[in-house]
Amino acid sequence: MAVPHLTTALTGPLLELEQRILGAMPDIEGWFRAQWQEHTPPFYGSVDLRNAGYKLAPIDMNLFPAGFNNLNPVFRPLAIQAAQVTVDHLCPGIANLLIIPENHTRNLYYLQNVAALRDTLRLAGLKVRVGSLLSEITAPTDIDLPDGNTLTLEPLVRRGRRLGLADFDPCMVLLNNDLSAGVPAPLQDIDQTILPPPQAGWHSRRKSQHFALYDRVASDFARLIGVDPWLINPYWGVCRGIDFQARAGEECLAETVREVLEQTRAKYRELGIEQTPFVMVKADAGTYGMGVMSVKDPSEVVGLNRKQRNKMAVVKEGMSVSDVLVQEGVPTFETLNDAVAEPVVYMLDRFVVGGFYRVHTERGEDENLNAPGMHFAPLAFENCCTEPDATDPPDAPPNRFYAYGVISRLALLAASLEIEALILPAEEPEPV
Amino acid sequence: MAVPHLTTALTGPLLELEQRILGAMPDIEGWFRAQWQEHTPPFYGSVDLRNAGYKLAPIDMNLFPAGFNNLNPVFRPLAIQAAQVTVDHLCPGIANLLIIPENHTRNLYYLQNVAALRDTLRLAGLKVRVGSLLSEITAPTDIDLPDGNTLTLEPLVRRGRRLGLADFDPCMVLLNNDLSAGVPAPLQDIDQTILPPPQAGWHSRRKSQHFALYDRVASDFARLIGVDPWLINPYWGVCRGIDFQARAGEECLAETVREVLEQTRAKYRELGIEQTPFVMVKADAGTYGMGVMSVKDPSEVVGLNRKQRNKMAVVKEGMSVSDVLVQEGVPTFETLNDAVAEPVVYMLDRFVVGGFYRVHTERGEDENLNAPGMHFAPLAFENCCTEPDATDPPDAPPNRFYAYGVISRLALLAASLEIEALILPAEEPEPV
Repeated sequence: MAVPHLTTALTGPLLELEQRILGAMPDIEGWFRAQWQEHTPPFYGSVDLRNAGYKLAPIDMNLFPAGFNNLNPVFRPLAIQAAQVTVDHLCPGIANLLIIPENHTRNLYYLQNVAALRDTLRLAGLKVRVGSLLSEITAPTDIDLPDGNTLTLEPLVRRGRRLGLADFDPCMVLLNNDLSAGVPAPLQDIDQTILPPPQAGWHSRRKSQHFALYDRVASDFARLIGVDPWLINPYWGVCRGIDFQARAGEECLAETVREVLEQTRAKYRELGIEQTPFVMVKADAGTYGMGVMSVKDPSEVVGLNRKQRNKMAVVKEGMSVSDVLVQEGVPTFETLNDAVAEPVVYMLDRFVVGGFYRVHTERGEDENLNAPGMHFAPLAFENCCTEPDATDPPDAPPNRFYAYGVISRLALLAASLEIEALILPAEEPEPV
Repeated sequence: MAVPHLTTALTGPLLELEQRILGAMPDIEGWFRAQWQEHTPPFYGSVDLRNAGYKLAPIDMNLFPAGFNNLNPVFRPLAIQAAQVTVDHLCPGIANLLIIPENHTRNLYYLQNVAALRDTLRLAGLKVRVGSLLSEITAPTDIDLPDGNTLTLEPLVRRGRRLGLADFDPCMVLLNNDLSAGVPAPLQDIDQTILPPPQAGWHSRRKSQHFALYDRVASDFARLIGVDPWLINPYWGVCRGIDFQARAGEECLAETVREVLEQTRAKYRELGIEQTPFVMVKADAGTYGMGVMSVKDPSEVVGLNRKQRNKMAVVKEGMSVSDVLVQEGVPTFETLNDAVAEPVVYMLDRFVVGGFYRVHTERGEDENLNAPGMHFAPLAFENCCTEPDATDPPDAPPNRFYAYGVISRLALLAASLEIEALILPAEEPEPV
């Protein structure tokens, strides 16, 4: 199977990072074990990574991951086993689980993801059915999928404080819907466990909170293995109360862009990286890569034209953008046949269960690879992510994939701190 | 990859069993989940199965399994993940683990197993070293293995009530030594957790106790899925106080053989199975297939000649045999290129992590395939054992392997009841 190549000569710091990760492996795993004694991992998650050669960092963490259909089928037993561990304590004994997906009925690629997730959970030994929030689903509706699988969407039935289907009372509800527009009525005041908790939907989740907690996780971890935390952590800043249409908040945005660019430029100078700094300007809440701009100079965010403002002002489900994250751009230097390749790592509970590359031929190394309408070719990881081999070079595929799994689990840990804070907003999350 | 074929027309009852297992999958997994809430699985185990076409049953359960080197490397991530789950609660945080293997220094195939086990536990994130009980190991000794791996045996060092190596203090000791000759002094009165517990060594373990507990597990499980428990459970009896050399106890042996043959014959008549019943006569304590006879008539165990008596009287490490298990023979009807193939399933904690066939060209379907000096060719399972597909026939390989995993986990559950009884001999094990 093909593995993308790093197409940059600037691999010195990364090789050192990968070498440190490889050498500290038992300490790293022991550190994670101790963290998971204190913090509950999310039910699942996916992490978008960027590998710049001189830096390996998460740029996004999804708590409602799609794309399970893109994982290498060889590793499905790993996902099944991880799901068994997860449901052991959530649903002991014979149990029903209800998946609530996004309200897409025509995005068959997304529905293949739901079917893949359903099948994995079934093979973990649960009775799994899929309930739709769509009012148009009034009876069980079979949808034939391009991969030959079938997904049946069924109407939700609420009985008092329990959610289920007409003849199905689940022990838990698994959300594969990021609740961008808020918590729908059927999901409010439910007695069953809902995971991830509805409070972690994009209606209340903020990337800036995630990356604030990631800062803490990354600096603890960097201390553990003795590296500069910047090697695994992009700089960032946030501007709140922006109104793109009214051109309100442009000064904050320009100032934050200037700061993040300046920090990045200073670090590039320190490490001798000959690269032009850029930042990604993103909605602080939201997904699907809507409301994202790549910016190299503060002037670019001042006096946006109508098209640019429209693009930035609205994300999924028509939610308007008022808070904006300005994140150091980490270029992607992994390519496959000249196409840019961005790794995405999937986790169930605390376990890495696979990953794939988004391979895209038409975009550059400093652009957003998860844009609406973007047609990436998924390339499943050939092995993942628990079999590093210290006798191989630090960038041999099993070692590179191990490093990907480690960095992704750091983002997962930050997400678990984030969920703690979202569920108990009055309390400080425990220190890592 | 090749999969052995069932070479018997008598597959009606088995197909029904496999169909029931397939159909009851969520109930089966829920039942296991509930069992593992009540009972702690052994650290690891392997189960020898026989597939007669009309019957699928465990004939042996090993708590100190060798053969990890024979598993399909594609599934090593599954073993790594299972090991992570296991050590999570045994050794939280950064941790050392000490393996104590059998006292073989020349059996390189066995030592490849130890190295495979060590590597899996290392990849699970532990610092793992191997300590030898052999007095001749007075300094770290590297042994080069046929597969290119290296195993370092190190001298045990005891400090008070802690066991370790000169510069290595483990959080737990993993036994890969079945302690046939008793618990060696260095392992007595140790504060660290030793798993499996030394009380579960063959010096005190009895197959008859295992199969008595398996009777209970198998009948509960058979009720769950609505089948005759005999389909998954061989008849058996036990004779104690036998002295082969003094010809004492032959009457008990002949009578027990007669009873087990008669029970088997009656069941064959009931189900229309045209097969000649036979029994396996085995030492009640012991391994390596020493002290095993295949018998078709009670007269065969009366008046044994010197050679036969010598064969039966002594098992591993020169231990004399006084207790004898008489077990219904379950013929092996799986063959690969005319060679008899016996499945062996491996588990870590409560998870099936792989398996292989012992493929042997020189022995018949009713003989013991695990005899000393026997050279079997291991054939790793091509997939294992968590991906049944109800749209395939019940004997399609993924479904057959799922059934193997289920039956093996029943034996694993019996072993966990057995360990409870061995550790707390005064208390009755809890009902399943």
